[in-house]
Amino acid sequence: MTPYELIRAKRDGASVSADALRAFLSGYVRGEVPDYQMAALCMAVFFRGLDGRELRTWTEAMLRSGGVLRRPAGSPPRVDKHSTGGVGDKVSLCLAPLVAACGVAVPMVSGRGLGHTGGTLDKLAAIPGFRTDLSLAEAERVLAEVGVCMLGQTEEIAPADRRLYALRDVTATVDSIPLIAASILSKKVAEDLDGLVLDVKVGSGAFMRRAEDARALARTLVELGADLGCRSVALLTSMEAPLGRTVGNGLELLEAVEVLQGHGPADVRDLTLRLGAEMLLLAGQVRTVEDGERRLATAIADGSGLSRLRSLVRAQGGDPGDLDAPERLLGRLDTTPVRAAAAGHLQSMDTEAVGLAAVLLGAGRRRSDDRIDPGVGFTVLRRPGEHVEAGEPLFRVHHRPGQDVTEVSHRLLEAARVGEAPVPAPPLLLGRMEGPRG
Amino acid sequence: MTPYELIRAKRDGASVSADALRAFLSGYVRGEVPDYQMAALCMAVFFRGLDGRELRTWTEAMLRSGGVLRRPAGSPPRVDKHSTGGVGDKVSLCLAPLVAACGVAVPMVSGRGLGHTGGTLDKLAAIPGFRTDLSLAEAERVLAEVGVCMLGQTEEIAPADRRLYALRDVTATVDSIPLIAASILSKKVAEDLDGLVLDVKVGSGAFMRRAEDARALARTLVELGADLGCRSVALLTSMEAPLGRTVGNGLELLEAVEVLQGHGPADVRDLTLRLGAEMLLLAGQVRTVEDGERRLATAIADGSGLSRLRSLVRAQGGDPGDLDAPERLLGRLDTTPVRAAAAGHLQSMDTEAVGLAAVLLGAGRRRSDDRIDPGVGFTVLRRPGEHVEAGEPLFRVHHRPGQDVTEVSHRLLEAARVGEAPVPAPPLLLGRMEGPRG
Repeated sequence: MTPYELIRAKRDGASVSADALRAFLSGYVRGEVPDYQMAALCMAVFFRGLDGRELRTWTEAMLRSGGVLRRPAGSPPRVDKHSTGGVGDKVSLCLAPLVAACGVAVPMVSGRGLGHTGGTLDKLAAIPGFRTDLSLAEAERVLAEVGVCMLGQTEEIAPADRRLYALRDVTATVDSIPLIAASILSKKVAEDLDGLVLDVKVGSGAFMRRAEDARALARTLVELGADLGCRSVALLTSMEAPLGRTVGNGLELLEAVEVLQGHGPADVRDLTLRLGAEMLLLAGQVRTVEDGERRLATAIADGSGLSRLRSLVRAQGGDPGDLDAPERLLGRLDTTPVRAAAAGHLQSMDTEAVGLAAVLLGAGRRRSDDRIDPGVGFTVLRRPGEHVEAGEPLFRVHHRPGQDVTEVSHRLLEAARVGEAPVPAPPLLLGRMEGPRG
Repeated sequence: MTPYELIRAKRDGASVSADALRAFLSGYVRGEVPDYQMAALCMAVFFRGLDGRELRTWTEAMLRSGGVLRRPAGSPPRVDKHSTGGVGDKVSLCLAPLVAACGVAVPMVSGRGLGHTGGTLDKLAAIPGFRTDLSLAEAERVLAEVGVCMLGQTEEIAPADRRLYALRDVTATVDSIPLIAASILSKKVAEDLDGLVLDVKVGSGAFMRRAEDARALARTLVELGADLGCRSVALLTSMEAPLGRTVGNGLELLEAVEVLQGHGPADVRDLTLRLGAEMLLLAGQVRTVEDGERRLATAIADGSGLSRLRSLVRAQGGDPGDLDAPERLLGRLDTTPVRAAAAGHLQSMDTEAVGLAAVLLGAGRRRSDDRIDPGVGFTVLRRPGEHVEAGEPLFRVHHRPGQDVTEVSHRLLEAARVGEAPVPAPPLLLGRMEGPRG
């Protein structure tokens, strides 16, 4: 089957043989299949999808384009968590050290923020000197030493995915569920995991705004995970408001430290414990979610989680002392409140708009080569369902002295819809899905 | 609107502004919009279509990428005919000189054969020395002198279409009705016509096998023609059998000469007269189809049509004497009959298979860089609906001495389905469509 025939077959809704798909992808990696044929295929996949077998073949081919994190004999169990992205999601920063403190290795390949969604790598980059561009060998060393490592996708990890993502990004073929699933899992499976927990966000600040789309993505992810021999569990969680009380890289890092100190917002703590418990379950360390949450709460209470984060920061080139020195992480900031125009109840929050206001402030990036100010951001003081007084601050904008935040403040005010009727606070956990057991 | 936004909008079924579409296409022509974005857009168009306004913009942008055949003051009316392609379709070769002999200029930009369908340029190339790679200036000169010119698409005529077609050909985005219509009309409108007659083929040897698809293409073509200020008429005609009695470039040229001499197969003559009458109607030379057909029959009877063809051959570098010398056109050939296995009625003919057998024989090309033998081909002795005796020849294969035609003969025999029940001969003319008058 020639590349042309494969594109045509997929375009016409036929199922394509594993050999043909593998040859197409490996031809693409070698530069023999040109970008324009891959772009046409991705658009055909956007319309026609991939069946389970095709998706597995596609993902494996991307995985095999790069290396894998090795696993020496006697290594502890390995699990990871992936979030589909949202606003204020700093969970990885407290979750990974906590799970590591419970004896499970967490090798975390993360992404950078783009558009309204933040990225774990950017939050870590708020720590001066912290390196995320680790080689596989370096990552293996940090993982063996600390029990957790955090790195970005390099040329060593699924380079086909990296190249393909760049192409999808300019050909409007990013938002295809099978292509998203293949991209996520090709990187995660390269970590050689015992299990993977997926936090599939749904709501106004998520990639998937509708619950049915999020469920379809979650279903595809857990099934593909199982097909690839990696037991996977997906939680559907709400992104109808920013997670926690902060948006902005340094601010979010500090909030994650608060959670590890036993403080911090309830939603960040709750989600961290629940996701962590699922990870401990997959690793075979506990029998129930409740057991898992207890173990993690202990790792917060005895300081072992925070101690892991400090070790991680040191191992990857940062100074753990910075975690206790907000002025070193954030620099000099002024604060401007954004006040409610009238009293009422916060009906809903356009969370994407909050994320885009953060981009405008300098806390995020529009394009992949934009620079970020790690210090600026927001405090989110009111959440949907809460009562609001007229003139009460809804947000605080943390900005550079002299920085004009008129437009940012305006957008935040627009994003928070205040009305008279009381509304219930939206639940955080919306569903759970598990792949078939192997 | 960025190229990315345009692709996404079209992907999601939105209508795209004329300015955005024009910018995308002109960016493509200038090399600023890369092939991979165009490939993604073409695949999105394959699934979503183009509305009337988008299609007009798209076609005009392709037209404007090149030059136009100029039209000096006092020039006669100008019309042309386009066929969507079939097997044995030599109509252009007799039609264009006949219409020119009736006082209407015919500037014909034609294509080469590919796959099972033949091309007018290849049939002309059977004449030693005949040049079809005319510049626009040369074409204008021949047109002024002879009243007809025949050329291929050069870098001067709709180069965007040429480049786009090459891309569509390798990305499985050729068979999209709006893209087909834009490709045809961008070239035809470059001829600065008063009217255009479209011969939309339907049946086993046509690009469109189903009448509904052919009708949809015809409808799109006549409406787009009208939108572009070129009055257009489409005839739907049968391609359930090769047109006429010959398949093969030199053989078809000689058959066209026979028609101009007042002989030749009835179907070729009938279709030539009908298409020509529509052209004369569009040019305002006659009032009715019947008047038109009479005028053309006179141009056959008085030899003025054939005389035009001779002048055309001379003006474009050939020797008109070759038209009377089959051995000079065809070279030395042997003939092998393909005989019916049993008596019966010819139920149907797989005309695409006949065309592909011609490719195998050397009369056509699989790939655009294949070479063609202008002399070889078939005589088609029986047509669907006709009675057949056991052992009677259904085809004659004209081949080079010593050439093995076992497989070719086998394929021809397979293509002609003989059965017991009498069947009616399929009608040639299946429908007529006219665009809205401006």
